[in-house]
Amino acid sequence: MAEFLTPQHEDFSKWYTEIVQKADLADYSPVRGCMVIKPYGYTLWERIHEELDRRFKDTGHVNAYFPLFIPESFLHKEAEHVEGFSPELAVVTIGGGNQLEEPLVVRPTSETIIGHMYAKWVQSYRDLPLLINQWANVVRWEMRTRLFLRTTEFLWQEGHTAHATRQEAIDETLQMLNVYTDFAVNEAAIPVIPGRKSESEKFAGAVTSYTIEAMMKDGKALQSGTSHFLGQNFAKAFDIKFLDENNEQQFAWTTSWGVSTRMVGAVVMTHGDDQGLVLPPRLAPIQVVIVPIWRKDDQRTEVMEAANKLYARLKGFVRVKLDDREGVSPGWKYNDWEMRGVPLRIELGPRDIEKQSVMLARRDIPGREGKTIVPMANLEETIPEMLATIQASILQKAQDYRDANIQDVTTYAEFKAAIEQGFARVWWAGSREDEARIKDETKATIRCIPLEQPGGKGRCIYTGQEATEVAIFGKAY
Amino acid sequence: MAEFLTPQHEDFSKWYTEIVQKADLADYSPVRGCMVIKPYGYTLWERIHEELDRRFKDTGHVNAYFPLFIPESFLHKEAEHVEGFSPELAVVTIGGGNQLEEPLVVRPTSETIIGHMYAKWVQSYRDLPLLINQWANVVRWEMRTRLFLRTTEFLWQEGHTAHATRQEAIDETLQMLNVYTDFAVNEAAIPVIPGRKSESEKFAGAVTSYTIEAMMKDGKALQSGTSHFLGQNFAKAFDIKFLDENNEQQFAWTTSWGVSTRMVGAVVMTHGDDQGLVLPPRLAPIQVVIVPIWRKDDQRTEVMEAANKLYARLKGFVRVKLDDREGVSPGWKYNDWEMRGVPLRIELGPRDIEKQSVMLARRDIPGREGKTIVPMANLEETIPEMLATIQASILQKAQDYRDANIQDVTTYAEFKAAIEQGFARVWWAGSREDEARIKDETKATIRCIPLEQPGGKGRCIYTGQEATEVAIFGKAY
Repeated sequence: MAEFLTPQHEDFSKWYTEIVQKADLADYSPVRGCMVIKPYGYTLWERIHEELDRRFKDTGHVNAYFPLFIPESFLHKEAEHVEGFSPELAVVTIGGGNQLEEPLVVRPTSETIIGHMYAKWVQSYRDLPLLINQWANVVRWEMRTRLFLRTTEFLWQEGHTAHATRQEAIDETLQMLNVYTDFAVNEAAIPVIPGRKSESEKFAGAVTSYTIEAMMKDGKALQSGTSHFLGQNFAKAFDIKFLDENNEQQFAWTTSWGVSTRMVGAVVMTHGDDQGLVLPPRLAPIQVVIVPIWRKDDQRTEVMEAANKLYARLKGFVRVKLDDREGVSPGWKYNDWEMRGVPLRIELGPRDIEKQSVMLARRDIPGREGKTIVPMANLEETIPEMLATIQASILQKAQDYRDANIQDVTTYAEFKAAIEQGFARVWWAGSREDEARIKDETKATIRCIPLEQPGGKGRCIYTGQEATEVAIFGKAY
Repeated sequence: MAEFLTPQHEDFSKWYTEIVQKADLADYSPVRGCMVIKPYGYTLWERIHEELDRRFKDTGHVNAYFPLFIPESFLHKEAEHVEGFSPELAVVTIGGGNQLEEPLVVRPTSETIIGHMYAKWVQSYRDLPLLINQWANVVRWEMRTRLFLRTTEFLWQEGHTAHATRQEAIDETLQMLNVYTDFAVNEAAIPVIPGRKSESEKFAGAVTSYTIEAMMKDGKALQSGTSHFLGQNFAKAFDIKFLDENNEQQFAWTTSWGVSTRMVGAVVMTHGDDQGLVLPPRLAPIQVVIVPIWRKDDQRTEVMEAANKLYARLKGFVRVKLDDREGVSPGWKYNDWEMRGVPLRIELGPRDIEKQSVMLARRDIPGREGKTIVPMANLEETIPEMLATIQASILQKAQDYRDANIQDVTTYAEFKAAIEQGFARVWWAGSREDEARIKDETKATIRCIPLEQPGGKGRCIYTGQEATEVAIFGKAY
């Protein structure tokens, strides 16, 4: 398989597009900018869905579903919001054979329609907080698309909450940023950097936007989830009002937060290598693949019987697949499953059966070094342990890579060199206009102002003014 | 609560619309024909989703995701299909601010776009069968809408499979009809009648359509799931071809099958009563609600402590809610949870704590008769047992109701009387035109030709000709 993949160092972007298709994660569709998520890719998304959904419910959220269509006039109620989203809209103008009186926008995000409903549902402080999440498809008309990373239609979850106080809404915004960070680090093994967006990068209509930023293997940044404190902007635009405990009319404070199928791209570009995908065990659709091996035909029955038995046994505690395909060699199967990023492979042949052991091969450590012979009796312990080891190990590897590619720089020349390789961390006190100039000059943007700050003061890399915060710059997807 | 609900016998349709909103299942949206599925209703849908999805995976299917938009020309490739769906389409004509060269249809169903992809994926008999399901939203422009039963946008799953042989595709079609029947009967407690659709009622583009038909409490029929054998119609329209084992080019045989959020409406109208919803325990978002009771304030601490303890204990094996709301009476809470259809209520007061027992009240048997005092020690057994009893009991009740309202009739006069009350089962050998005339004259249609046939022969109720099959007629939602 590997020889059909462009090596990462040669053309990372080409490697990405190839592996997404070869590993059956997604395919192009006949609809401009829209992709088909194939079963293997969709199962990965189901795992992401499941793990996020569990965390949302654990933090008191419930799911609901709001309409796909939004009356065009709704978008116009929040000035920054409409400015941000107008260029990206798909618009339905015909319904049931007739021209519509008011065109319907296919939701690019649902603050407006949900704001309208919240205004209807919220009367008193007793109705708050509203803690609702929606799993849905959204559409943003994109000119340059890329499988999973930027598509006209994508799947996501969008949380929308309304609160009685400013502080409670801020706490919610940060809580969900933490949920995303926890998910990214502990499930996807992606060492994201949580931080605040700069003024020019924040969500259209937000007071403050937070983000988790990940570094891909080519040193570029991928925004992997966002959480927005919307202040009273949408409450005022949609009239979400309540009577407080003193019987006074107040506007609610709202938040929104989302993670999309883009996360699949993040997993691919954080862990993949020249052999293909490397999936984190906690999210992998298949955690263990059993490859039966025999040389002579008379060994086949014995091996397949043992393999089936093993499969039935493992099914109880891991997501396992038995590759019983005929007509292809074990070696071909190894390559195929390596390409698909299955974390652990079990090789099972006549000698293993004789010795009551199996060969375990780790996807994250290629060749001999990643292989261990373990007794068949202990697999209930060995396999979960080894999956946990792989999970921790690929996280560590990604973190080492990231840390090695973030440079603290103090001159613009160093800055320019740093962002060719990865991220630049700099003292920052610039304006929106300064950001725009840097973007023009270097293609780098502020990925975030990290929550974790060194403290103290420094000189802004661009303006030379005194700065109290550091920012992380990088080129982004 | 109950006094605010229109009694079913007075106006069933009004009762339905009221309870769907009062029980927080759904709300109207500002978008014509589109509803908002509220958290309680969505959780019920999540349970339906979960139970269906498990069955799909157990029968070898995987999930994937195809684009929301379909090029308009695709619809035209299958003649009957375009005729059936054209009047119901929502059409996107503007994208990213520009008029589109080819308008995009918002999917009303996905045979066409999936057919296009399958043609790309299938080359050889080794690529078959393709067994894919999709969970998605679809849009059909409806003139007269009704919460859950008929909305412009709805959620559903649509399975699409492709096979090498006709027989395999027929087997798949019937297998999925069985899966739906099993789900309806054993999860939703709805005694559906599986059968074949008549020529005039079948899916646009199908060779044969199968359906599960349910009888609502007003005697009307609700089509609750369909499974279609598409023959080679879509394979020919989209060029899904493969090389068979003899190296000859063949068209594939395809199927499609779907269940939608309409199922929520079926649950409501099969089991609900004048007090509100009656939810089947297996699908109920909340299976057990604990209502703590105290008269004097000094009892409060003791009762709440016991209630919290009980809650923590039950959480391990049932979906339980502790109603700790202040400022409303236990009686008010009883009514509220009855209205929401929670199968089992636990009343817990100081005397129960003293006696180490609890009062269990069944939603499906109102008043004293449905109450039992059970020892607190045995709840791990008692509760699951009682939930199973309720599940079986509401299924039986629905089945008795249905059977009492299906009449075998032999004259058109009897027929007309029967369909005022429920279903008419009749010998049938009529044509499409005969069906149309009966519909004009009585508003009744063939709901299905049941799979279970009496055998033998009879006289067609309409034409008097010899008939070998019985059909079930009814007025339908």
